[in-house]
Amino acid sequence: MKKTLEELSRLVQGKVEGDGGVVIEGVAKVEEAKKGEITLAVSEKYLHEAKKSQASAVIVSKGVRDFSKPTLRARNPRLAFAQILEVFYPQVRKFSGIHPTAIIGKDAKIGKKVTLAAYVVVGDAVEIEEGAYISSGVSIGDRVVIGKNSLLFPGVTVLDDTAIGGEVIIHSGTVIGSHGFGFVRKEDGSYYKIPQTGRVVIEDKVEIGANVTIDRATIGETSIGSGCKIDNLVHIAHNVTLGKNVAIVALVGISGSSTLGDGVVMAGQSGVTEHVTIGNNSIVAAKSVVTKNITPGSFVSGFPARPHLRQKKVKALIDRLPQLVERLKKLEERVKDK
Amino acid sequence: MKKTLEELSRLVQGKVEGDGGVVIEGVAKVEEAKKGEITLAVSEKYLHEAKKSQASAVIVSKGVRDFSKPTLRARNPRLAFAQILEVFYPQVRKFSGIHPTAIIGKDAKIGKKVTLAAYVVVGDAVEIEEGAYISSGVSIGDRVVIGKNSLLFPGVTVLDDTAIGGEVIIHSGTVIGSHGFGFVRKEDGSYYKIPQTGRVVIEDKVEIGANVTIDRATIGETSIGSGCKIDNLVHIAHNVTLGKNVAIVALVGISGSSTLGDGVVMAGQSGVTEHVTIGNNSIVAAKSVVTKNITPGSFVSGFPARPHLRQKKVKALIDRLPQLVERLKKLEERVKDK
Amino acid sequence: MKKTLEELSRLVQGKVEGDGGVVIEGVAKVEEAKKGEITLAVSEKYLHEAKKSQASAVIVSKGVRDFSKPTLRARNPRLAFAQILEVFYPQVRKFSGIHPTAIIGKDAKIGKKVTLAAYVVVGDAVEIEEGAYISSGVSIGDRVVIGKNSLLFPGVTVLDDTAIGGEVIIHSGTVIGSHGFGFVRKEDGSYYKIPQTGRVVIEDKVEIGANVTIDRATIGETSIGSGCKIDNLVHIAHNVTLGKNVAIVALVGISGSSTLGDGVVMAGQSGVTEHVTIGNNSIVAAKSVVTKNITPGSFVSGFPARPHLRQKKVKALIDRLPQLVERLKKLEERVKDK
Repeated sequence: MKKTLEELSRLVQGKVEGDGGVVIEGVAKVEEAKKGEITLAVSEKYLHEAKKSQASAVIVSKGVRDFSKPTLRARNPRLAFAQILEVFYPQVRKFSGIHPTAIIGKDAKIGKKVTLAAYVVVGDAVEIEEGAYISSGVSIGDRVVIGKNSLLFPGVTVLDDTAIGGEVIIHSGTVIGSHGFGFVRKEDGSYYKIPQTGRVVIEDKVEIGANVTIDRATIGETSIGSGCKIDNLVHIAHNVTLGKNVAIVALVGISGSSTLGDGVVMAGQSGVTEHVTIGNNSIVAAKSVVTKNITPGSFVSGFPARPHLRQKKVKALIDRLPQLVERLKKLEERVKDK
Repeated sequence: MKKTLEELSRLVQGKVEGDGGVVIEGVAKVEEAKKGEITLAVSEKYLHEAKKSQASAVIVSKGVRDFSKPTLRARNPRLAFAQILEVFYPQVRKFSGIHPTAIIGKDAKIGKKVTLAAYVVVGDAVEIEEGAYISSGVSIGDRVVIGKNSLLFPGVTVLDDTAIGGEVIIHSGTVIGSHGFGFVRKEDGSYYKIPQTGRVVIEDKVEIGANVTIDRATIGETSIGSGCKIDNLVHIAHNVTLGKNVAIVALVGISGSSTLGDGVVMAGQSGVTEHVTIGNNSIVAAKSVVTKNITPGSFVSGFPARPHLRQKKVKALIDRLPQLVERLKKLEERVKDK
Repeated sequence: MKKTLEELSRLVQGKVEGDGGVVIEGVAKVEEAKKGEITLAVSEKYLHEAKKSQASAVIVSKGVRDFSKPTLRARNPRLAFAQILEVFYPQVRKFSGIHPTAIIGKDAKIGKKVTLAAYVVVGDAVEIEEGAYISSGVSIGDRVVIGKNSLLFPGVTVLDDTAIGGEVIIHSGTVIGSHGFGFVRKEDGSYYKIPQTGRVVIEDKVEIGANVTIDRATIGETSIGSGCKIDNLVHIAHNVTLGKNVAIVALVGISGSSTLGDGVVMAGQSGVTEHVTIGNNSIVAAKSVVTKNITPGSFVSGFPARPHLRQKKVKALIDRLPQLVERLKKLEERVKDK
């Protein structure tokens, strides 16, 4: 595929500086960009590398001036980059209908242009809407609903009663609707299982990474709001509620009955204990553990999680402990001398 | 289903206060309880909400008096709640026999009323006892034994020589019997694989969450005692021994050859290093790492894990570091002045 | 199988002390060793136990003298142990050809002596080289290459365009080539997906544990160098580069575009943030998070990761905080008195 810089610019509502007629045939990282390719440079460091590179054009932010190559200036350069990547690498799914080895339960409703690949198993009373693509080896329980154009990669497991919205993407190995970890300890030390009678509801445009686990509710729903993005190997417990556009990085654990407001970001390997509410648009730093409710717009870190600026100050003091002890020792000597 | 409060009370050996004839048709969380439903209130907060709710009856502990609604008083209210949930939501598995697509190896013994669902693969010399339910897409290696009434959810992998007891539940995506992470580093920096010749033994009434991994022993057995409950995304290395009724929360890692005594609880994202023994009924707090043997009945936290009370004191002092530095500075000035 | 100690010694280029004619029929852990078995004793503790054990011979390091049993002295005793284990427990895979239920796409090239077990799905234009063993239920995408004698355990997912070298082992539930976690946040708070157009390349002799996830690159390659060993439940993000012989323990997360040099070791539950380079042969302690580039040969710990000796000193001071506060208080009183 070939596009002029001008054409690309129009597609992403950007502005060309320099030769808009330059022909672009691909997208590359700045280190690897060759002639005919466009690259992205958001920070000073990458601007510098982009100048030296073979790239024929560079996507930059509106503030960048006097650049030595043709540029595409965009308000959100990373967004423009993503949109241009799509032009050159369209994410098509080849519709392939219902494979003869797909097994479909009773009373299932399968929409138009649904793909059920090899060895897919679909339970009873399932509803799969138009354009959904269910890859090989996916297992779908009874009474599951899967919305329009959703994409399940190979080996996903969706258990009974789960409701999945439209344009949802679920990566391989992920399990939706496993039992919540609910047990009552008896006097003899053994555990009695609390039946997990609820379900999981996933709204539209959610993307869930590989080998994630989302448990069904004990009663009611574990609920994932529209637009949430969940990375690989994340654990979401029973009765958790995620608002809209929550982003959760890899290896995070969200404990039972906790609620994350709209736009919350959980960095890698962080966690939330049970029955906690995190306010909208809060950010939880990597490896932190949130143990108490957090007001909207917070930026917290550490365990227990506290305001990040305060944590940073404390961390800096911890690093200076050797010097502090030295000062204390000197003082003791001086005072002793007197 | 309809039950009077009196009937439910008898089932769970509780005691009714107020109108025992009130008819109960379901169980609900306190926030969502409607007329005809029973709810659970264990703490002050929930008691308060339960009073205001539409619930027709409330399960409370024996100590609660003067409640405005009919109550079911139980010694262990959470246990009573679990038992009543079971009454209204019986956890049935529809026996469905051996699916024509299930593949069974040589010399396999399949008991009565065993379900092998679609695309199950069973190796040679496997023994599956009466009433076991093997869901779709499960892979079972050679010489595996699966005990009575055990339930494997879709997509579980059980590798060669694993022995699983009766009434075990294993959730989707879990892998039992993968090779332990055992390598010897050679002088050229490369790793030489230590053959992993042992197996995994899982005793009765164990429940294992989704996407868990339990490695086979290098030699001998990795062993999971009866009644253990393991949450999602937990890693259990080669030659680990879990006693009875050990509870392990999500994203925990237990390193090779470590031993957890009966009744040990490992909170979320915690870990244990190699060759460590944790005494019976010890509790390991979230995100902690146990690096040395721990005596029975301990409650430890931090990395390295130490007695929790001590850790808490140290953590409190860390938080006060800014003030301590301030005090030190003042002292320095005073001493200097003299 | 029976071997004399002398025969075993020759196999591993060791040296016998004592009766080289003693017949060995198996290998056992020191606690369980019986007559006719050989065991390993690397440390003082195990030497002591080995002496008391029933074992007929003991593998020891060259420095050990005057032992009460026949010994096999080896420069690298653990390596000798691994090699002898192999003798008694050969890791054979029974070649079983292409199962009638295996589904193979168009233009696939399947080498000699390749096993495709039950319910394997292979995409279009795939190349599987001689001797590769693909276990039941494995899903292989389009244009994937799998090298000679590689072994994929049941339920592995290899997505489109992945290249896997020879003698690679991948354990069950692992996902190779899932989409990187790449999104651009828009002004309305929603996320726009960055197409993940790259692929994963895995070189020879890599071993990857169970339920691991390795994401494809946004552009270019996520690359795993030859001889890398990855434990269970590890997350490797898009565009990560691992050098040769990198060892990564369970529950580690490597963020996008980071590079680990040859021979790096990441201990359990540790992490690396984005765009970080870790120099060759560095060691990252358990639970640490590397946030900045690290020079070769470093040993770091903590979050942010710092030189381990320094961290250790700081940790010791933290533990002594209660005493430090006591000293500060005393000083304050003395100074006040004056």
